[in-house]
Amino acid sequence: MKIEFNSEREFDIIAIGRACIDLNAVEYNRPMEETMTFKKYVGGSPANIAIGTSKLGLKSGFIGKLADDQHGLFIKQYMAGVGVDTSNMVTDQKGHKTGLAFTEIKSPEECSILMYRDEVADLYLDPSEVSEDYIKRSKILLVSGTALAKSPSREAILKAVQLAKKNDVKVIFELDYRGYTWASKEETSVYYTLVAQQADVVVGTRDEFDVMENIEAGSNEATISALFNHSPELVVIKHGVEGSYAYTKSGETFRGHAYLTKVLKTFGAGDSYASAFLYALITGKDIETALKYGSASAAIVVSKHSSSEAMPTVEEIEKLIADRSKEAVTNQ
Amino acid sequence: MKIEFNSEREFDIIAIGRACIDLNAVEYNRPMEETMTFKKYVGGSPANIAIGTSKLGLKSGFIGKLADDQHGLFIKQYMAGVGVDTSNMVTDQKGHKTGLAFTEIKSPEECSILMYRDEVADLYLDPSEVSEDYIKRSKILLVSGTALAKSPSREAILKAVQLAKKNDVKVIFELDYRGYTWASKEETSVYYTLVAQQADVVVGTRDEFDVMENIEAGSNEATISALFNHSPELVVIKHGVEGSYAYTKSGETFRGHAYLTKVLKTFGAGDSYASAFLYALITGKDIETALKYGSASAAIVVSKHSSSEAMPTVEEIEKLIADRSKEAVTNQ
Amino acid sequence: MKIEFNSEREFDIIAIGRACIDLNAVEYNRPMEETMTFKKYVGGSPANIAIGTSKLGLKSGFIGKLADDQHGLFIKQYMAGVGVDTSNMVTDQKGHKTGLAFTEIKSPEECSILMYRDEVADLYLDPSEVSEDYIKRSKILLVSGTALAKSPSREAILKAVQLAKKNDVKVIFELDYRGYTWASKEETSVYYTLVAQQADVVVGTRDEFDVMENIEAGSNEATISALFNHSPELVVIKHGVEGSYAYTKSGETFRGHAYLTKVLKTFGAGDSYASAFLYALITGKDIETALKYGSASAAIVVSKHSSSEAMPTVEEIEKLIADRSKEAVTNQ
Amino acid sequence: MKIEFNSEREFDIIAIGRACIDLNAVEYNRPMEETMTFKKYVGGSPANIAIGTSKLGLKSGFIGKLADDQHGLFIKQYMAGVGVDTSNMVTDQKGHKTGLAFTEIKSPEECSILMYRDEVADLYLDPSEVSEDYIKRSKILLVSGTALAKSPSREAILKAVQLAKKNDVKVIFELDYRGYTWASKEETSVYYTLVAQQADVVVGTRDEFDVMENIEAGSNEATISALFNHSPELVVIKHGVEGSYAYTKSGETFRGHAYLTKVLKTFGAGDSYASAFLYALITGKDIETALKYGSASAAIVVSKHSSSEAMPTVEEIEKLIADRSKEAVTNQ
Repeated sequence: MKIEFNSEREFDIIAIGRACIDLNAVEYNRPMEETMTFKKYVGGSPANIAIGTSKLGLKSGFIGKLADDQHGLFIKQYMAGVGVDTSNMVTDQKGHKTGLAFTEIKSPEECSILMYRDEVADLYLDPSEVSEDYIKRSKILLVSGTALAKSPSREAILKAVQLAKKNDVKVIFELDYRGYTWASKEETSVYYTLVAQQADVVVGTRDEFDVMENIEAGSNEATISALFNHSPELVVIKHGVEGSYAYTKSGETFRGHAYLTKVLKTFGAGDSYASAFLYALITGKDIETALKYGSASAAIVVSKHSSSEAMPTVEEIEKLIADRSKEAVTNQ
Repeated sequence: MKIEFNSEREFDIIAIGRACIDLNAVEYNRPMEETMTFKKYVGGSPANIAIGTSKLGLKSGFIGKLADDQHGLFIKQYMAGVGVDTSNMVTDQKGHKTGLAFTEIKSPEECSILMYRDEVADLYLDPSEVSEDYIKRSKILLVSGTALAKSPSREAILKAVQLAKKNDVKVIFELDYRGYTWASKEETSVYYTLVAQQADVVVGTRDEFDVMENIEAGSNEATISALFNHSPELVVIKHGVEGSYAYTKSGETFRGHAYLTKVLKTFGAGDSYASAFLYALITGKDIETALKYGSASAAIVVSKHSSSEAMPTVEEIEKLIADRSKEAVTNQ
Repeated sequence: MKIEFNSEREFDIIAIGRACIDLNAVEYNRPMEETMTFKKYVGGSPANIAIGTSKLGLKSGFIGKLADDQHGLFIKQYMAGVGVDTSNMVTDQKGHKTGLAFTEIKSPEECSILMYRDEVADLYLDPSEVSEDYIKRSKILLVSGTALAKSPSREAILKAVQLAKKNDVKVIFELDYRGYTWASKEETSVYYTLVAQQADVVVGTRDEFDVMENIEAGSNEATISALFNHSPELVVIKHGVEGSYAYTKSGETFRGHAYLTKVLKTFGAGDSYASAFLYALITGKDIETALKYGSASAAIVVSKHSSSEAMPTVEEIEKLIADRSKEAVTNQ
Repeated sequence: MKIEFNSEREFDIIAIGRACIDLNAVEYNRPMEETMTFKKYVGGSPANIAIGTSKLGLKSGFIGKLADDQHGLFIKQYMAGVGVDTSNMVTDQKGHKTGLAFTEIKSPEECSILMYRDEVADLYLDPSEVSEDYIKRSKILLVSGTALAKSPSREAILKAVQLAKKNDVKVIFELDYRGYTWASKEETSVYYTLVAQQADVVVGTRDEFDVMENIEAGSNEATISALFNHSPELVVIKHGVEGSYAYTKSGETFRGHAYLTKVLKTFGAGDSYASAFLYALITGKDIETALKYGSASAAIVVSKHSSSEAMPTVEEIEKLIADRSKEAVTNQ
């Protein structure tokens, strides 16, 4: 099965949601309280995906709100610099700040993140700042779940999804769950269910699907059975080192395997996975191949220091896949 | 066309949302600042509809949150007294208050309402307090738009709609727009659109549909054309004294006429209309007849002092229709 | 001892703080959930004192913020009607509402009050709306403790006290504690202590002084010992039916006795007490006599239906004192 | 004139308020959006003063609230490491974050700061966490104005001042104005006036005193004339490169001159000034000498990268004063 995209569209993908700052520990292998220096990168799941797909050669755009300060300016300049269209990135006028993520790299197994998400500019994106004219120029609208955590960003996302569906733009929903900003698990479940039912492709970890269903230890079968009653055509459920499963509405199941690599830190894996997976789908590859692209891209990013700057090129991905041809994807 | 309901269900209708207090001016024909005495009634659109349908002989239930004080107690006792099932009306534990509506009756044309809606208990209904077991015992879930205005009531409603659709419960969406508690017109439009697209029947005034579409002076044709791409089977658009239009997905249009009456005040008309209209649909009457029931019920309530206590019986409605048989409903 | 006031001043007293609506049960001797009709009066401690002193013939003014609706208009018209200067009562422009107090009159011993104090206009009085030119025209600034419960009203009061002290205006602090709007007992204690130390006269019940000191069952001796290290010259501590004690910085103690009366309800007693007590002080009576005036005024108000409209005249007070001459005040 | 301190006390100084993180640009002479690496230091005016006085050999303590994360841990470890007593630094349990200050060092004249002050832990210090037993062990309570910007920190400070005055602890008020967190200029003026009137020593820039008085271009004469009607014995008003003036209640005026130095950045100057000035007063030096110590300490800090780590020793200060003996303080 292949997902069909509207080939007339100028943009391959428009991502919506947060664009933030990562402050990554320069000194490794120690707790953050002993880390004295931090290096600055653009971060935030949908921003990383816009950057990642742009570096893979797709035409990407971004809808989001930036702080009116040096951090906001840096993000806009960086994203424009790697080719992302920033014409729909608006600047906050009410003193909200850029979200921050300080990373601690104690060991490959222990990577914690200290988030600054109070009153951040990205959550103040207003529905009036979401343009139908812009969205309808794209094949894909990429929605990340965190942007649903607070009003008015929540309503901006819901409006964007309504506009995408009205204009034949495929909606990709990356669950991207961050407990920090949500009022309750019930609240998360309501909005995740709402958007997942309207999306064409849903991507997340098994844990994130459990959050969506407000249950513990849910099964992939129950998840896809419920979702395929609604809009989704393709559901990708990631199980960490065990690899990932892609389910299609027509009944196929594909399994993708993780590529072993020397891990520096774990964050950034999901966004690089999504970027390469979507790149493969958009360029007409089949789902098995897309799963390989996703895994290869993730393997490259977890071995490097940043999430955004480390996003690989097509050549790097394809080289890794070729080198590891025995770590295959099997159609079960 | 007739709407089909699941005949196995114990409840005809479960309404969800606010149950409040109306404080109606005892002295008429003067501005409120000169009104010295107020009489207390239960109010709030979905509470009025639960009461109205119960007085018409239907089995009604209510999901909502009440203040933990004498006003909350009065509401629960009154609703139980007229036969509404109050088993799913929960009591707030955080000091929130009962919503109030002081009414001013200057003249039949000038009836203003002074609302107390800050931090009211009904808007604190939590999604965890919405029970799937309860909702699936009903033919209909009646949702009123005001309950979407604030979290967590908003999420409670969205969850109730998800549960209703999952369990073959018809969703009736009464737009019931009150500007007071909404953050912006964009926000209202997003949630009204969301719920209307998922509802089976949508009822509102032309002005309320304009709010839903975030436009001025919209047309019924555009409204139904957009909605019939989604779940709705029946859309009722009210045009005040000009009467109302009922549109079906199968392409029929019905017009209902208002019955002339001696008007004391205008509020309460919409809720009595909805009660009798739904009563007629549930008891298997056709849409033309349901429109007459709605108009007759509204005509009775606007001639009386309250909204809830004035809800008519079936006999009163049928007598008025018989008396006014020349004020007909025409299938256009 | 007598308190000396600046005799050059145009106003005898300017009160600052809340002016609200009381909705008093028309039907007595029943719980509020069975009360169906409510009568409207002006309420709120400082408003009652402005009204009470004006009815006693003093020149009173008021600083406060009113809702921009019919309730706000009623308050302004009523207060102007009884002679209070309303030139410094500003109208809120942000949709805040008038505070409400529904009263339940079950029996003389059981009178509860159901308060609406969320987002009320009076607590939005801004320091920029407090005029030095106005305050310095008065002998007395009457501050009620409840106005300290929330910003910006809190800052408006603190500024008014600073301006009063700068301009030789006596500050009377009526503790008037209402737990409802305060964040914590610690918070109340901090601001009550701050204003009490700067006041010239402090008036409250023993319970209210305990709140100020954040202790249980405090002693009058400890209270006055701490306060007389600061500005206060006179401290009045009320002990309910046991009567009240007035302490002067110069070391005198006076005891006032309550006049027995047929009690309808207990609320309003404190404000009528303060009005008459201040009237007596301002008109040059000694403290013993002022205590009698206070007790007599309270006895009259508790036998009537309202707090504001029931405020007595000088003749009524003096007649009651003459009639009850054996219920004396003794200098201990 | 010399300020007399209670010589029996264990602590020389207890500071109260914020302890935060400075993230100073590692790369200089460029705008912050082009700065890619940041170095972490403890920051916040009262924390800097506790650190500065401790490094000068005084016994310092600190009252404040820290985030329950790696940044909070770093601050506590660092302050304990330089000898500050951290027994009254409490850890927030509600997810609040450490305040941040990103510094931009474009040039010695252009040093901007990007503050993260939303929902920070230090502003959640509760009055219940301020201990009378701790405060009364100190000669001095050092209060910084920023801690008055929000509740409950505001009430914690007001309580601390009440306890200090009750227990013969000198109150030093460092105005330390940061516009960011205040609701309005009126609000700042109310609380600055309140605390300044109760303090023994008030220190600030001319601009900060203008904020306190809510005027533009105020005069030192008017400032001291108003303050000396209340508690202050000593008022220090800083005029930047023109130097500073110290006024005593007994009528003396002293002028301190700035020491010229090679400036790297301007921030940190005020805190190092206050640390050395207070050190000199506490160790019994006269006011002229204290002004020199303050200026010398400021000159040293502005030539270095951090505010806290750069705090000089007594030897460094005295060496600079000796080297620059011709840049004198004159008694005018």
